[in-house]
Amino acid sequence: MSLALLGELVAAFPADLLRTADGERARYETDHRNRYHGRALAIALPRTVDDVSRLLAWCNQRGVGVVPQGGNTSYCGGATPDASGTQLVVSLERLDRVRSVDAADLSLTVEAGCLLADVQSAAAEAGCFFPLALGSAGSCQIGGNLATNAGGLNVLRFGMTRALVLGVEAVLADGRVYERLRSLRKDNTGYDLCSLLVGSEGTLGVITELTLKLSGIPEAISGGVCPFPSVEAACNAAIATIQSGIPVARIELLDDVQMDAVNKFSKLTYAVKDTLFVEFHGTEAGVKEQAEMVQSIAAEHGGGEFKWATRQEERTHLWQARHDVTYANKALRPGCEIWATDVCVPISRLAECILETKKDLKQSFLIAPLVGHVGDGNFHLGFLIDRDQPEELAEAERLNERLVMRALAMDGTCTGEHGIGLGKQKFLIAEHGEAVSVMRSIKQALDPLNILNPGKIFTL
Amino acid sequence: MSLALLGELVAAFPADLLRTADGERARYETDHRNRYHGRALAIALPRTVDDVSRLLAWCNQRGVGVVPQGGNTSYCGGATPDASGTQLVVSLERLDRVRSVDAADLSLTVEAGCLLADVQSAAAEAGCFFPLALGSAGSCQIGGNLATNAGGLNVLRFGMTRALVLGVEAVLADGRVYERLRSLRKDNTGYDLCSLLVGSEGTLGVITELTLKLSGIPEAISGGVCPFPSVEAACNAAIATIQSGIPVARIELLDDVQMDAVNKFSKLTYAVKDTLFVEFHGTEAGVKEQAEMVQSIAAEHGGGEFKWATRQEERTHLWQARHDVTYANKALRPGCEIWATDVCVPISRLAECILETKKDLKQSFLIAPLVGHVGDGNFHLGFLIDRDQPEELAEAERLNERLVMRALAMDGTCTGEHGIGLGKQKFLIAEHGEAVSVMRSIKQALDPLNILNPGKIFTL
Repeated sequence: MSLALLGELVAAFPADLLRTADGERARYETDHRNRYHGRALAIALPRTVDDVSRLLAWCNQRGVGVVPQGGNTSYCGGATPDASGTQLVVSLERLDRVRSVDAADLSLTVEAGCLLADVQSAAAEAGCFFPLALGSAGSCQIGGNLATNAGGLNVLRFGMTRALVLGVEAVLADGRVYERLRSLRKDNTGYDLCSLLVGSEGTLGVITELTLKLSGIPEAISGGVCPFPSVEAACNAAIATIQSGIPVARIELLDDVQMDAVNKFSKLTYAVKDTLFVEFHGTEAGVKEQAEMVQSIAAEHGGGEFKWATRQEERTHLWQARHDVTYANKALRPGCEIWATDVCVPISRLAECILETKKDLKQSFLIAPLVGHVGDGNFHLGFLIDRDQPEELAEAERLNERLVMRALAMDGTCTGEHGIGLGKQKFLIAEHGEAVSVMRSIKQALDPLNILNPGKIFTL
Repeated sequence: MSLALLGELVAAFPADLLRTADGERARYETDHRNRYHGRALAIALPRTVDDVSRLLAWCNQRGVGVVPQGGNTSYCGGATPDASGTQLVVSLERLDRVRSVDAADLSLTVEAGCLLADVQSAAAEAGCFFPLALGSAGSCQIGGNLATNAGGLNVLRFGMTRALVLGVEAVLADGRVYERLRSLRKDNTGYDLCSLLVGSEGTLGVITELTLKLSGIPEAISGGVCPFPSVEAACNAAIATIQSGIPVARIELLDDVQMDAVNKFSKLTYAVKDTLFVEFHGTEAGVKEQAEMVQSIAAEHGGGEFKWATRQEERTHLWQARHDVTYANKALRPGCEIWATDVCVPISRLAECILETKKDLKQSFLIAPLVGHVGDGNFHLGFLIDRDQPEELAEAERLNERLVMRALAMDGTCTGEHGIGLGKQKFLIAEHGEAVSVMRSIKQALDPLNILNPGKIFTL
């Protein structure tokens, strides 16, 4: 940490805007899962976009790195400062106001620090539906969801976060405020800066406010659970469902290891088998018809009996179990850390990719339950590791490397959801090659002094 | 035209790749509707991405402007060379191969010069559905659809072109080839260069090949037509339908003037009233239920009796009439030019915006039928003008300016679909202000010599 720099910072901003004591800083210097660690110059807690603007202008004049931080739930270290003690963490937690909910235009404008759960509630109170569905909704912030282009359970029907954003306000590296908060469904005026900022992991601007697209609350929703004799059978049933054009809202795979953990943690009695969780949205008749079609596809692939949940409480219980997989996995091995990774492949290669991955896991001493957003070809592994045993971390990294290389060999990607952050930079290069230089050119144009989340996604 | 430069060009490339004679060049120097005119150095007709790469490298070394051109159906001059005679038009028409159709992954890879109609057919032959639906499908090219982020009739359900693209190959200003043709449904690796290239109107790269997302062919489709007592009633019925969450695939408004033109041209007998055309996709029961719900919403807003079309031939006839509005409008005033424009507003402001616009039109001596993708808050006017009467062009421009300013005052945009090109640059500045400088920074980073479609979208 640079004491001189810290002195300048403290002199330049009101004390209430900064946290500098060790005890106050600690939780901002480490991610939620305690996987990545750093040391900040200080923590800034702006209350307004003007505060953010002044902070960034100050940093830009001095070449001080800025690490924007939302709920700090990133899986890949995207919001953690480096070890130098010279980077300013800018937490958005105080920018947490719901600005407006517009049921007529099916849109909602909120500040970046709003918790996802609060966004969901604000939409629901207005009789609308905001479809981003993440297990971390109670702690992640919507600005972070945008910065990382978060995925979740409803991607199949509603798209990733990028598809849910109508407009953003963001502070650029030099403190200029880019503002385009609109509730327009179509806008074809020049470059799509909104899509560029979304998913840029805080390296091109600090998102301070945003307008989201809402949906109508479906008239009917139905959820079901179906066990399969093998992971291959479950995947193939999911693929056949997608290919048949049935507008299913969710298809989630939980492998046998994961089902065991979920049963134990959520006190459920599902068969310990590779299992699909599905959900349909629509009209009463439409949902019923979709469910019948999927049931018959599942039966063709050896699926067992469906358990259906049409009442809200049943569905909440069902999906809570799915959302709680991280806790369930932690309970499998008390004190362990969940070392999470994800890949995505074309759906036609999904069964093959999962089978080979499970073969790898069987030969390892580590346990890693598998959950997949299989309708998208995307799946996650959560290695249960003891951080004090270096060989366990090394084994997780070895298996992860094999997983990513397997996905790339199948024309897949090293991350369908989590992003690059610090954790997947070498894979980004392996995957994109020359294209990374195009990304670098854009970064250099918008942030010439490289102050915005320096070292994340790629190094310059 | 620079003869020395032309000599160099002719010396550097095989004769078969270039067209230099006046007669051969003319159709590339004027857009499809004869609204924008220019003079090219020559026309290049590359056969491969390597040809495009060599052409761009040559131009970049000499600072020669490149105008990429697809089917040349742009409404705003985006593919027309300037008058200098020093810009090279690069037509993609020979890159027209379908590379692969993958029904298992619901994706399709084609070269940029493929006609949209051929892309639609290739998808259909594989038992899939490519939802981009434009009246110009028989002449526009898919690469141009990407470059302009085309909209069309199915945006409500499937999104603009950007939402349908999984990956692109593009040649950058210096001839480097950016290639990321994947059939992945999720990819969260770094900046979304694909979304940036789509809609950049040829100013950041020349798209040469692309992978598109296909959908399943819906089990059932139903289309219907309903007349309303006023344009306000029709808009309000459309808005209520969207707000109710009914997953309607299309809602198109044709005003009374447009219905009159359509009846006459397509030999139909619809009432000459403000009318909604709707379409539903889904299962048999789902479509039936949706149709009933919309029928009851329409009735609440004073809508007349629906005419339904469930059989393919009936539907084709119905939508052909909608697609043919340009021809119908031309027939209203033989020899006229259709001077088209579009705006988009939040749906809650749509009725108000359309009403004020129609009031303006009533007070003018020009006729301009109105069609709207009203589910998105987007509508088009097509002024019927005689190009030889300068006061008619002036009047169209005056009304267009009032239309755009009205849309902006309602938090709308100067173009929901057509793009900026040459025609809407001053409105872009009025609408985006400072944000245009961010676009300029990106342009300068990726095309430092400003050779790619110089002068389009904005001037540097």
